[in-house]
Amino acid sequence: MLLDQIQKANDIKQLSPKDYPQLAQEIRDFLVNITSRNGGHLASNLGVVEMTMALHLTFDLPKDKIIWDVGHQSYTHKILTGRKDDFTQLRTYGGLSGFPKREESDCDAFDTGHSSTSISAALGYVHARELSAQDYKVVAVTGDGALTGGMAFEALNNAARLESNLIIVLNDNEMSISKNVGGISSYLDRIRTAKTYTRLKKTVKKNLSGNRVGQSMSERISRAKSSIKQLFVPGMFFEDMGITYLGPVDGYNIKQMCRAFDEARRLDHAVIVHVVTKKGKGYAPAEENPSRFHGISAFDIKTGDPILHSDKETCTQVFARSLLEEAQKDERIVAITAAMADGTGLTEFSKKYPERFFDVGIAEQHAVTFSAGLAAGGRIPVVCIYSSFLQRAFDQIIHDVCLQNLHVVFMVDRAGLVGNDGETHQGLFDLSYLSMMPNMTVMAPKNKWELSAMLHYAIAEHQGPIAIRYPRGTAFDMLKPIQKEIKYGKSEIIIHSRQIAVFSEGHMMKTALRVVRRLEENGYHPTLVNVRFIKPLDTSLLSALAKDHDVFVTIEENMLSGGYGEHVAAYCEYNKLGVDVLSFGIDDIYVKQGSISVLKKAVGLDWESIADKIIHYMQEYNDQQQEKV
Amino acid sequence: MLLDQIQKANDIKQLSPKDYPQLAQEIRDFLVNITSRNGGHLASNLGVVEMTMALHLTFDLPKDKIIWDVGHQSYTHKILTGRKDDFTQLRTYGGLSGFPKREESDCDAFDTGHSSTSISAALGYVHARELSAQDYKVVAVTGDGALTGGMAFEALNNAARLESNLIIVLNDNEMSISKNVGGISSYLDRIRTAKTYTRLKKTVKKNLSGNRVGQSMSERISRAKSSIKQLFVPGMFFEDMGITYLGPVDGYNIKQMCRAFDEARRLDHAVIVHVVTKKGKGYAPAEENPSRFHGISAFDIKTGDPILHSDKETCTQVFARSLLEEAQKDERIVAITAAMADGTGLTEFSKKYPERFFDVGIAEQHAVTFSAGLAAGGRIPVVCIYSSFLQRAFDQIIHDVCLQNLHVVFMVDRAGLVGNDGETHQGLFDLSYLSMMPNMTVMAPKNKWELSAMLHYAIAEHQGPIAIRYPRGTAFDMLKPIQKEIKYGKSEIIIHSRQIAVFSEGHMMKTALRVVRRLEENGYHPTLVNVRFIKPLDTSLLSALAKDHDVFVTIEENMLSGGYGEHVAAYCEYNKLGVDVLSFGIDDIYVKQGSISVLKKAVGLDWESIADKIIHYMQEYNDQQQEKV
Repeated sequence: MLLDQIQKANDIKQLSPKDYPQLAQEIRDFLVNITSRNGGHLASNLGVVEMTMALHLTFDLPKDKIIWDVGHQSYTHKILTGRKDDFTQLRTYGGLSGFPKREESDCDAFDTGHSSTSISAALGYVHARELSAQDYKVVAVTGDGALTGGMAFEALNNAARLESNLIIVLNDNEMSISKNVGGISSYLDRIRTAKTYTRLKKTVKKNLSGNRVGQSMSERISRAKSSIKQLFVPGMFFEDMGITYLGPVDGYNIKQMCRAFDEARRLDHAVIVHVVTKKGKGYAPAEENPSRFHGISAFDIKTGDPILHSDKETCTQVFARSLLEEAQKDERIVAITAAMADGTGLTEFSKKYPERFFDVGIAEQHAVTFSAGLAAGGRIPVVCIYSSFLQRAFDQIIHDVCLQNLHVVFMVDRAGLVGNDGETHQGLFDLSYLSMMPNMTVMAPKNKWELSAMLHYAIAEHQGPIAIRYPRGTAFDMLKPIQKEIKYGKSEIIIHSRQIAVFSEGHMMKTALRVVRRLEENGYHPTLVNVRFIKPLDTSLLSALAKDHDVFVTIEENMLSGGYGEHVAAYCEYNKLGVDVLSFGIDDIYVKQGSISVLKKAVGLDWESIADKIIHYMQEYNDQQQEKV
Repeated sequence: MLLDQIQKANDIKQLSPKDYPQLAQEIRDFLVNITSRNGGHLASNLGVVEMTMALHLTFDLPKDKIIWDVGHQSYTHKILTGRKDDFTQLRTYGGLSGFPKREESDCDAFDTGHSSTSISAALGYVHARELSAQDYKVVAVTGDGALTGGMAFEALNNAARLESNLIIVLNDNEMSISKNVGGISSYLDRIRTAKTYTRLKKTVKKNLSGNRVGQSMSERISRAKSSIKQLFVPGMFFEDMGITYLGPVDGYNIKQMCRAFDEARRLDHAVIVHVVTKKGKGYAPAEENPSRFHGISAFDIKTGDPILHSDKETCTQVFARSLLEEAQKDERIVAITAAMADGTGLTEFSKKYPERFFDVGIAEQHAVTFSAGLAAGGRIPVVCIYSSFLQRAFDQIIHDVCLQNLHVVFMVDRAGLVGNDGETHQGLFDLSYLSMMPNMTVMAPKNKWELSAMLHYAIAEHQGPIAIRYPRGTAFDMLKPIQKEIKYGKSEIIIHSRQIAVFSEGHMMKTALRVVRRLEENGYHPTLVNVRFIKPLDTSLLSALAKDHDVFVTIEENMLSGGYGEHVAAYCEYNKLGVDVLSFGIDDIYVKQGSISVLKKAVGLDWESIADKIIHYMQEYNDQQQEKV
């Protein structure tokens, strides 16, 4: 095994070029093997094996800085920097992260996770280098999908005036999570079908009469910019901005890539190296269906089929089905997503109502203001974005939707703990950041039937901005018979009792029910409330229950800061309700990767931890009461 | 006066073209006159008088939708839609807004305030129009500065695939708030110096042999795209994306503009009309110094000098001075802003340390992640962005700075009520959205000396992300002798007494001191605490003071939701401190325009309202206590 010779950064440089194909094959086999067992991001990693090798052959890590946009395509990079053996614990709690992490290796220059950040971070490194008179190279590895995100353009706009070397590798696999959209995409399309890098160079050489020895090709290209323009070279879009363009380069030709990277590192300004790759390369099922092999769970290597198959509906599927029902009833409904059509369950909708469906690319800011425009024009936009990505549109929700009190429905998928993707993807802020916005209503359903009911309520019975948050994975399918009519700002009482009242946010109901059972086993008979509306707070219920309850327990899958529990506690304090409040949520930490059940235990949001704490609290509480007597 | 004939939308169409210059002059005189008395945005409005007239001559309002990016340049639009007489109350409480407002006129199609939103909103309207089979036109009026904001690019990327008419007017005045930066700017520069629209058309005509009658010029341009490319037409950048480009057009030639708008409205896809204007046009002091006449207070028309001149330092000036001192001591310090160099006080720094200064354009997202890169590279970035604009970088602060616990110093200027700019510019969310982020420290200084001390602390004595928020306007300059050493997470006690404890956030200290005096006049002798650290909460002080105090009063210039007061209240509730908590802040509303003092009264954050409420509360409280006895 050649792979065994790679124990640390730069070991790859000891190999002979004739061994590269074998190493690439070994890496591919390793990647398919590992992800088939533990899941992970497969298609994108298979696509960049050779490109990563070429980067490691050209650059000197950890001295040089490689910043991986999004970061889930960094597996080969991790393997080549001595972390192969850690892959058995990939994406598990305490194990190897599926994303670059500075605390994991000094070869990881910058943590990533969300799209389109790498050029900005790289520019920061470049200026830091110049100011401290160091001489490392900085490489941002970004994708064609990431270029649809506005902040990548903000960074390119700033890179254009750089007077020092910055290398931007554009890993162009013709899609981001799913098929790209818009001008950039069709533009890159045109480039790909144009001359290749090598043929371009020949043309240029000819035009320059090719007799200036000692100059790098890119210097010549740069000097001859006006002649090149007349040739309609690919990449003029970038050249127009002032950034040198090299490419397209074949992402499976290591020699060609090394040559391009080598030329790029000699320039005294920003340069884009356009590398054409293919998602899923080398593993047939992934090549055929790269979208399904984007982020996957364990699968059968031969067929590519997932090993565990639940026949229970996910929240996403419940939403997808319900939206189709609503869309049939009301033609004003339109659906908007930001490169998450599959992930948010909009594929079927997009086929049935193509003219009412909008995938705007990795562009959450635009998605939200675009929806505000649709609402101002009389449509009912349903915006489907994962909780952690919706953070990108925080200002747009405040400024373009809520301020004008526009009827936009936000379907906040992947809210709460998402598991193996870790810190950057946990949806733990939305209850806080949405609750602080005037005019906004925030809901969370206890089970699958309520998710459908809430969607109907949000579309048909509400006016103004409204958000429904629900978690990744299986929709809770108990409590079907309990489905009181949804009324604005009103919670739903599941069990009406006394002394202890448990307030459960959304899908924490599954946990809350077990907590209640355990409490009952211990002689307590708590009230159980399905919160339904995080905002507005059901203050009349809180005041009413305070009369015959001693302790309020709040359970939510969100940061405590600014979340539901704090709002309840503050309300009780301000109004001197005379109850104790115990809040369960995330206490001011980033939650790392791991399975959701492991993570819940780790942060104390599993039913046993919660029940134990309540029981302990009640024992102390009762002791104190007796002392008073 | 021709202006008197303009009483409502479309009245301008009754005028004869020969009257246009006089109308333009009357509007200019009116604008200078009004803003000289009440202040407002002058330079940008003077620049677009003729362009706005041309838009109103071409389009049919309110049927057609004009969306003004940023929106502070909409004064002429307001005049031409029958709101001239309301200008006496411009930007005052209850008066005319300085920005487009749907609730003010049905000619205002979309509320704006922050940059780069107009194309997204316009695209929303366009699709709404198509889906409802209506036939209005949609015009986004954006600026060259707004194009440096990523979401404008996200929108352009989506506009590129549009198969229906959308008109984007690019109002190119060669600057946004201050001079633009980056690739887009130099690109537009090149276009401006190229052929004019008319000359271009002639060239094109010649090349097309000009004998196809009945076709609009733009249709011909579109069909002849490849020939045009060979001519190096301006706007290829946009054409490359799939958006037709018309221009550049002279922003003071109404006939030429009308013709271009007329051609633009006939296309079946997105088109950019590039209009070249000049900030401050027609008023010498504003032409010479457009940056100073961007947003101004009352001034002398003859000289352009401000009428009221305070010799007290603003918070911004204090920061500017202090940063220069720190920068001299530590060369690792770099300063970053997003098109707010003047506004945040960085002009002097940029001159003294040009290589350590970065104005990234209207690109808050990039600014923050770029700073994270600088910090990862060993620099100490000081990021200077207004509170309401920093909302744009919410995700980047969470994801790129706090997650990696990078030492980035955020100077959050214009925090709290900013006054006449209104809803979109109030800085009322930052304490909430920053407090919820793990690893973040949030401070606010009570006076000018503490602002300096906090800056020093943040740079030299702290590691990790830290934010200092301070308001617009004069820095508070009392309590100079009281300046205890800053210790992490510790508040400062100004007066140590008993029964009532007033916790004052930042510059609310000025208000708090008066509240305390009034309380003293009424026989109460409260403790007064300068909060200093909004996060982390000084829980040990809260617990200690709870022992000999009955009531905690919190005062902050921020939303109550997720703010300081709620954190105090929740802490008291969770820990059963047995005190009452009274919180003063903004209660879930958007605060409109008006002078800051008027607004404070309106939201109950003035010292009298606060003192009255506390006194009333204490009377009831004491009555209850006596009843208990």
